[in-house]
Amino acid sequence: MITRLSSYFVRTLREDPADAELPSHKLLVRAGYIRRVAPGIYSWLPLGLRVLAKVEQIVREEMDAIGAQEVRFPALLPREPYEATGRWTEYGPNLFRLHDRKSGDYLLGPTHEEMFTLMVKDLYSSYKDLPLALYQIQIKYRDEARPRAGLLRGREFIMKDSYSFDIDDAGLAASYQRHRDAYVRIFDRLGLEYVIVQATSGAMGGSASEEFLAVSPNGEDTFVRSPGGYAANVEAVSIAPPQPTDAEGIPAPRAILTPGAATIDTLVDAANQVAPRADRPWRGSDTLKNVAFRLVWPDGRSELLVVGLPGDRDIDLKRLDAAIAPAEATPLTEEDFTANPGLVKGYIGPVALDGDAVLAHLGSEAATGIRYLVDPRVVPGTAWLTGANVADTHLIDVVAGRDFTADGVLDVAEIRDGDPAPDGSGPLSLARGIEMGHIFQLGRKYADALGLKVLDSNGKLVTVTMGSYGVGVSRAVAAVAEATCDDKGLSWPRALAPFDLQIVATGKDEAVFAAAEQLAAELDAAGVAVLLDDRKASPGVKFADAELLGIPTTVIVGRGLTDGLLELRDRATGERSDLPVEGAAARLREIVAG
Amino acid sequence: MITRLSSYFVRTLREDPADAELPSHKLLVRAGYIRRVAPGIYSWLPLGLRVLAKVEQIVREEMDAIGAQEVRFPALLPREPYEATGRWTEYGPNLFRLHDRKSGDYLLGPTHEEMFTLMVKDLYSSYKDLPLALYQIQIKYRDEARPRAGLLRGREFIMKDSYSFDIDDAGLAASYQRHRDAYVRIFDRLGLEYVIVQATSGAMGGSASEEFLAVSPNGEDTFVRSPGGYAANVEAVSIAPPQPTDAEGIPAPRAILTPGAATIDTLVDAANQVAPRADRPWRGSDTLKNVAFRLVWPDGRSELLVVGLPGDRDIDLKRLDAAIAPAEATPLTEEDFTANPGLVKGYIGPVALDGDAVLAHLGSEAATGIRYLVDPRVVPGTAWLTGANVADTHLIDVVAGRDFTADGVLDVAEIRDGDPAPDGSGPLSLARGIEMGHIFQLGRKYADALGLKVLDSNGKLVTVTMGSYGVGVSRAVAAVAEATCDDKGLSWPRALAPFDLQIVATGKDEAVFAAAEQLAAELDAAGVAVLLDDRKASPGVKFADAELLGIPTTVIVGRGLTDGLLELRDRATGERSDLPVEGAAARLREIVAG
Repeated sequence: MITRLSSYFVRTLREDPADAELPSHKLLVRAGYIRRVAPGIYSWLPLGLRVLAKVEQIVREEMDAIGAQEVRFPALLPREPYEATGRWTEYGPNLFRLHDRKSGDYLLGPTHEEMFTLMVKDLYSSYKDLPLALYQIQIKYRDEARPRAGLLRGREFIMKDSYSFDIDDAGLAASYQRHRDAYVRIFDRLGLEYVIVQATSGAMGGSASEEFLAVSPNGEDTFVRSPGGYAANVEAVSIAPPQPTDAEGIPAPRAILTPGAATIDTLVDAANQVAPRADRPWRGSDTLKNVAFRLVWPDGRSELLVVGLPGDRDIDLKRLDAAIAPAEATPLTEEDFTANPGLVKGYIGPVALDGDAVLAHLGSEAATGIRYLVDPRVVPGTAWLTGANVADTHLIDVVAGRDFTADGVLDVAEIRDGDPAPDGSGPLSLARGIEMGHIFQLGRKYADALGLKVLDSNGKLVTVTMGSYGVGVSRAVAAVAEATCDDKGLSWPRALAPFDLQIVATGKDEAVFAAAEQLAAELDAAGVAVLLDDRKASPGVKFADAELLGIPTTVIVGRGLTDGLLELRDRATGERSDLPVEGAAARLREIVAG
Repeated sequence: MITRLSSYFVRTLREDPADAELPSHKLLVRAGYIRRVAPGIYSWLPLGLRVLAKVEQIVREEMDAIGAQEVRFPALLPREPYEATGRWTEYGPNLFRLHDRKSGDYLLGPTHEEMFTLMVKDLYSSYKDLPLALYQIQIKYRDEARPRAGLLRGREFIMKDSYSFDIDDAGLAASYQRHRDAYVRIFDRLGLEYVIVQATSGAMGGSASEEFLAVSPNGEDTFVRSPGGYAANVEAVSIAPPQPTDAEGIPAPRAILTPGAATIDTLVDAANQVAPRADRPWRGSDTLKNVAFRLVWPDGRSELLVVGLPGDRDIDLKRLDAAIAPAEATPLTEEDFTANPGLVKGYIGPVALDGDAVLAHLGSEAATGIRYLVDPRVVPGTAWLTGANVADTHLIDVVAGRDFTADGVLDVAEIRDGDPAPDGSGPLSLARGIEMGHIFQLGRKYADALGLKVLDSNGKLVTVTMGSYGVGVSRAVAAVAEATCDDKGLSWPRALAPFDLQIVATGKDEAVFAAAEQLAAELDAAGVAVLLDDRKASPGVKFADAELLGIPTTVIVGRGLTDGLLELRDRATGERSDLPVEGAAARLREIVAG
C-alpha cells in the first residue's frame, strides 16, 4: 500500500514545542512522530508508530534467537507481591499507586520481577525446567520527578524486560552472557554508538549489573572510560583508595582562628595567612570538608548523616543518590542545626562526630552520635585541615585513624577527567550517555522473597537464581533520533526508517504526478515501503519536509522528467545525483536494500 | 524455529480454576494460555500471546484496508479532557482514577474519544483533511463491578478502537458503513457466528449504534431476532406501544380490600375472590405494578423514581440500567419508605404519584412529587388493577390518562420470546451473545465539547461529526475459544491457532523422535508453525494435552513408523487417518493451508 502524504495523518510544525530542549524531542514533535498528552506521556502518530514497530521487531527477533519466550503481563498489578519484596515502599513517589472500587491497592508496574517470579513459581517445580528465559514488550510506568526530553524520560514508556531463571550461579552467569550478547546485537542493529559500563543495581537489588549507554552529549548518564578498557557509570565507580600511611611525626592537632572562612577557598586563604606550611601553600585537597544531610527513607524514617571528603571535590549528587538508595538526601534545615548544636554550620569537624574527646578543651560539644562516613581517600594516617566544631575555628593536622575514626566509607565524590581508573588501566575520561539497556544478575533476592524454589537433581528444594534485563524500546526511538538528526531534521538509519523511500512530486505538471505514482506503484509492488508526497505544495515546502521527516532516500520527480531524469537525495550525506527514469525502480530497490 | 513442548513455557492443569464458570475461561487457564493476576486482570503465556497476535493482525489488516491509520495513545490520561465531556464523573466507579506525585488527577483510559478529538483538533483545520479514520490497538481499563469469565469481562483488556471524522452527516454515514463492512470481514475471518443488532449508546452518547454479538449461550448480552430480520440488543428494543383507547364506559375507580396481597399473584387471587370480573378471571397483565427505586448519579445526586408496568412482566435490570445511565438504580431502604409515607410498600399506586386528589377520600396522602414513569403499554384509556397507596387496598379501573397521568414513558420491562417485533416483522426470539464489536455514530457530542471545528469549503467554521468503533481484541480470543471448544479442550480455527500443526512423538524409540524432529524441521523450513511434543511422557498424557491445547491438526509419530505410517488427527472433527511418511510434509502443508 502506497502511503500518500496528502492524506497521511501528519502535520509538520515550524515551531519547536515550548517544553523541548533536546533536538530529538523537538524534531520528533515537529516532524509529526509523537504528540505530548501530559508531562512524560506521549501519543504515537503513524510515522512514530512505524519506527517503534521496527525497534520492537529487532528486539523481539534477538530475544527469540536466544530462546527467550514472549509473554505479556498486565500493567495494573496488585500490591501484595511488591509488598513482599519491599518495593511497594522502596519505590517511594516514583510508583503510581491507585485503589480499585473495592479499595484494593494496585500499582502501575515499573518493572515486573515480582510477577515473573510468581509465574514461574506457579508453573515450574524442577531443575529440569531450567534454564528458562521469559520476556515481554510492554508498557511501564514511573512517576518521574522530572519527566523530560520527550521519550527519553517518560512516565509511560515501552520496555522490553526479560528474566532468566537458573538453578545455580554458573547457570545465571551463562544466561547473563547470552542476554549480554543479544543486547550487543540489538544495539548494533539499531545503529547506535554505545558503551557497556559497570553499573549500580539501585532499587533492583542483586549483584553485578551493566548498562548499555548510547554515547550522547545530551545523555542524562555520565560514564568514565580508561585507555585500558575500564568503563563504568560514574555512579558505579569505586575509586582505588590510597594505602594507609604512617602518622608518625605528624604533630598533634592544633586550632587556628579562621573567622568567616566557611568555604574551602576562604579557608585555604586563611590557613596560608595564619599558619603557612613550610613545604608549600595550603591547597583545597589538604582540607577535609564535612557535609551534613538528612537521609529520608521511603517509609518516612530519617537520620542525619555527615560525609567527609577532600575539600577540592564536590559530592556528586547522582553518586550519592545511588549509594544511599532507597533513601534520599535532603539538605539540613535551620531547625536541624538548632537541634544538633554539635554541628556548627561551616565548621563541622570529624572530632565531634567521632566522639573523641581529645580536643574537648576547644569547647567542642560532646559526641553527637551522628553517623559519619568518609571518602576512600581519607585513609588512616592522612592529615587534614578541617572544621573544629567551633565557630570561626579550624584544626590543622587532624589525622584519620589517630584523631578520629569514621563510621565507614562513602564513595560519592565527583569523578574528574584524568582521575586514575580503579583497576589501574589509566586516566579516566568522562562522557555522557543515554541508558538504553540494563542487565542485572539479580541472584536470589526475588526468589527468596517470594519462595521460588525447585527440586534439584537430588530431590532437594533449592532457591532459583535470577537475572533481569531491560531495553528501553520507546527510548530507543528517541536515542536513535538524537544520534542521527541534524539541523534540518531527523535522519533515520535504514533499519528504523518509517519508510524505505520518499518520492516527492514537484510542480503542477500532471505528467510528473503520474510518473511519481507509477514509480511508487512499481516499488510498492516490489515490497518497498514508499511515502509519496503528492501534496499541492511548493517544492521548497516539500523538500524541507522531506529533510525534516528523515527518510533515508528521497527521489524527486520534477522538471528533469522531460529529459528522462529523476533526482536522488541521500538524507544522511546530503548527496544529490541524477537517476535515469529508465531502470529507476530497479536501482532504487538496490539502494534501499542497503 | 520449531517450538518444543519440552522447553515451552506451558503447563497444562488437570483442575479447573476455582473462579471459572465458563468453558473458555477454564480451558484457557488449564491449557496454559493465560494466568490470572487479579480479578479481571490476566497475563498472557506464550500460547495465548500467539493467538492474541493473530487476532490483532486480522483487525489491523482490515482497518488498514479501509484506509484507517494506526496511532497509539497512552493509557494513563489527564483528567481535563474527560472533565470537559462530563465522562470523568459519568463513568462513576467504573473508572480507575489516580493521582500523580504532584496530586494531578489522572485516569486509566476506558475509551479514547476525547483524546482522538483533541489530536485531530491539534493537527487538522480544513474540510480538505476529511474524511479521516484513525485507530489504535491498545490496552483499556474499566473497573468492572463484577469482572468475570476470564477474558470476556476484564478490567485490563485490549481493544481496537477507531474514530472517524467527517464534515457532514453523509460523510459520517459513509464512514460508519465502511467500518461496518470491515467489521463483517473481521468477524468472518475470526470464524465467529455473530449477529449485528441495534444497540444503545450508553455512556458513549451519540445516536445510532450497532453491536456485533457472537452467538453464545454463555454470553452476557441478550438479544432478540424476528423472522423478518429485526435484530436488537434487548437494551435497545423499543416496544411498539398500542394505540390509545377510549375509556368511555369504564366506571370510576373503586377500592377493594386485599389484605396481604402485596405480590401480583396474591393480588390476582384476591381480586378474583372479592371482585371477580364478568368476562374472565383477573390476570397478571391486568395489574399495574409500581416499583420504586432510588436513582443515584455518579456525582452523588439522587432521586426517587417509581416505574409502572403490567404486573405480568418484571423489570429487566439491564434494560433499566441502559435507560437510566449514567444513573444507577438501587432498591429503596426502610428509611426511604419512612421518609415518604406516600409510598405504601406493596400498595404503591399511580394516583398518589400523579398528585391527582380524586381518590383522597380513600385516605391516600397528597401528591408525593416523586417521578413516575410507565411502560409504553400503559397508554391512555387502559384500565388497571393497581395499588391504592393504602395498606391492604387496591383499586380497580384506574384508567391511564383519566385517573392519572405519568411523567413519561420508560421502556424497561422484560422482553419475552414471542413478543411482537417493534417493526412488525414477526414474533421475537431471544438468544444470548458476547459483545465483540460496537459501532457508534457519535455525531458532534465530543467535537462540540472539545471545540473540534474545521473550515468548510466556504471558509466557515463547522463542527466535525464523528464515529467511534470498537473491537474487543482480547475478548475475541475467549469468544472464539468459547465457540469452538468441547469437553476435551480448546479447538482453534486455523486463522487463530497458535501453531499450524502439532507433532506428537510417542514411545521411547529414538528413531521415532528423530523422525518427528525431521518432519518438524522440514515443515518449519517450509514456513509451517510447528509445535513438537518431544516430552518424555506417556502417549495418553500427550494425546490428552494435544486435545486440550487445541491445535487444528496433530500428527502422531509412533509405532506405525516401522510400516511407514503416521497418524493424522483433526481436532475439530476428531477424524483419524493414516498418513504415509513418504510425502507427509507436502500433504501436511496442503492441510494447514486449508
